[in-house]
Amino acid sequence: MSVFTTVTPAELAAWLKRYSLGDLVELKGIAAGITNTNYAVSTTQGKYVLTLFETLQASELPFYVNLMAHLAHHGIACAAPIANQRDEMIDSLCGRPTVLVGWLQGEPVDVPSPTQCHALGAMLAQMHRAGETYPGHMPNPRGPQWWTAAASELYPYLSSTDASMLRNEISQQGRARFAHLPSGVIHADLFRDNVLMHGDRIGGFIDFYYACNDILIYDLAITVNDWCALPDGQIDAQRAQALCAGYQSARALNAAEREAWPLMLRAAALRFWVSRLWDWHKPPAGELTYRKDPGVFQHILHAHQQRGDAAHWL
Amino acid sequence: MSVFTTVTPAELAAWLKRYSLGDLVELKGIAAGITNTNYAVSTTQGKYVLTLFETLQASELPFYVNLMAHLAHHGIACAAPIANQRDEMIDSLCGRPTVLVGWLQGEPVDVPSPTQCHALGAMLAQMHRAGETYPGHMPNPRGPQWWTAAASELYPYLSSTDASMLRNEISQQGRARFAHLPSGVIHADLFRDNVLMHGDRIGGFIDFYYACNDILIYDLAITVNDWCALPDGQIDAQRAQALCAGYQSARALNAAEREAWPLMLRAAALRFWVSRLWDWHKPPAGELTYRKDPGVFQHILHAHQQRGDAAHWL
Repeated sequence: MSVFTTVTPAELAAWLKRYSLGDLVELKGIAAGITNTNYAVSTTQGKYVLTLFETLQASELPFYVNLMAHLAHHGIACAAPIANQRDEMIDSLCGRPTVLVGWLQGEPVDVPSPTQCHALGAMLAQMHRAGETYPGHMPNPRGPQWWTAAASELYPYLSSTDASMLRNEISQQGRARFAHLPSGVIHADLFRDNVLMHGDRIGGFIDFYYACNDILIYDLAITVNDWCALPDGQIDAQRAQALCAGYQSARALNAAEREAWPLMLRAAALRFWVSRLWDWHKPPAGELTYRKDPGVFQHILHAHQQRGDAAHWL
Repeated sequence: MSVFTTVTPAELAAWLKRYSLGDLVELKGIAAGITNTNYAVSTTQGKYVLTLFETLQASELPFYVNLMAHLAHHGIACAAPIANQRDEMIDSLCGRPTVLVGWLQGEPVDVPSPTQCHALGAMLAQMHRAGETYPGHMPNPRGPQWWTAAASELYPYLSSTDASMLRNEISQQGRARFAHLPSGVIHADLFRDNVLMHGDRIGGFIDFYYACNDILIYDLAITVNDWCALPDGQIDAQRAQALCAGYQSARALNAAEREAWPLMLRAAALRFWVSRLWDWHKPPAGELTYRKDPGVFQHILHAHQQRGDAAHWL
């Protein structure tokens, strides 16, 4: 369910006059997204997506919204925010901060092909390159400090085997040094449901609200873990190779990145294992949360651990 | 002929690495445009138009290029310039300043329908509204001062009837006062070949290199004169009414604009009559110029004069 705030056609028609986008033709709730309200908006001029933010405040949005505008301006396929007649990309409606973006073609794929993975990898690398000139800065709120603190509250809920696995991984990640690796703006949540595929092309990246500054190959690792994982947590080598080859067609990896890669795949699995454990065991009181199985990422992490240190799929 | 500067695929493939747009797939000259070189560029990521400027200098481009980016950012259908990895929209190739823009769907129409005219008028008004926050400023280089000076060199080439018609119109326009009319950024050359139509929708406005600050309904008048003129210089009332109604669906005209309208239609015809006379009688030495019949706009002007002062089609 993703319409938490109801907007009537009459309200929207009046509100749209703040923009240079023509008159409202149709308004439709979009059944995707778990924290914001999204509407498909058609006007006499084109098609757009209107997001009403249910938790983020207007003051928290500029990093994300300016980033999307910056990336679109560099030709990266992503939702491009549209400015109103006061030249602002962030507006408000029904008491919620809003962003209106251009409609993107395509839809998420469940089981991507190697060809699609290649296109995805290439676009991700291009996004990393285009991000080099982005002036905004946002520390990763889901980094080692966060997962260490979160885990300390989760151990009581876990079996001793799981707790020990979690503790060991956090400890090993803590001993690793990644500060020498190329960093920049990353999407940090480029799961299949955040990429619209238009055939074998990238229709667009969406949902930039976890974007932050961090290590670039961490972003690649997050992406491989979701796009290439099999049900048992193993990685489909063909897809992973295609994704990594696509990435390297646009941005070469250096020796330090190749060396760090196996541990980075584990870090990326750890981050989502912890956040899913958190949502599972400690859901915010009084809120309907959308829990996902933490086991998925535990299995991915386990498979990475078993595989050892070879520079897989690069 | 519109490829004055030849770019090889190898040159372009190397040059494209400055952008975040993937690898070159195909490069094709575009047979349109009379002052610049245009190429259709396909990459692994998308499709673009590359313009190499043959006469404008890089220092002259920012007003136009920033304007296109501003309008696209507000949702106006127009070519959106893409920034390179140095965050610059203006680059260079083969010794020419360049701009790379996203590919727009559609193509120019020769005989537009009233429905298409309505969509055009609405988009033109939206463009005028979106232009309100554009900070750039450019005086119109083809205004009354220019046409008065140009005409004084043209009279010797004209029959006494034509010279007298031209002299009288310039004199009448000179006595009119337009300074109280709403002004802003105008396209100033929105002829049919500068609008890509995608069915009944506006695919995009192109060729902003006459854009400037001037009176808004002057832009509307230029547009009506080209989009709605019949071969004898009369205006097709159905198309003109649709175009003006479309415009007013997005921006209401005030009483002063309605009053000035008949004279503005004549001013818009005068401007192109003079520039075509100039190209006809005084082509720049040693250049292959693309002469168009000045008589077209003389007939349009004549028809406007005959019609008198009613607020036509508004």
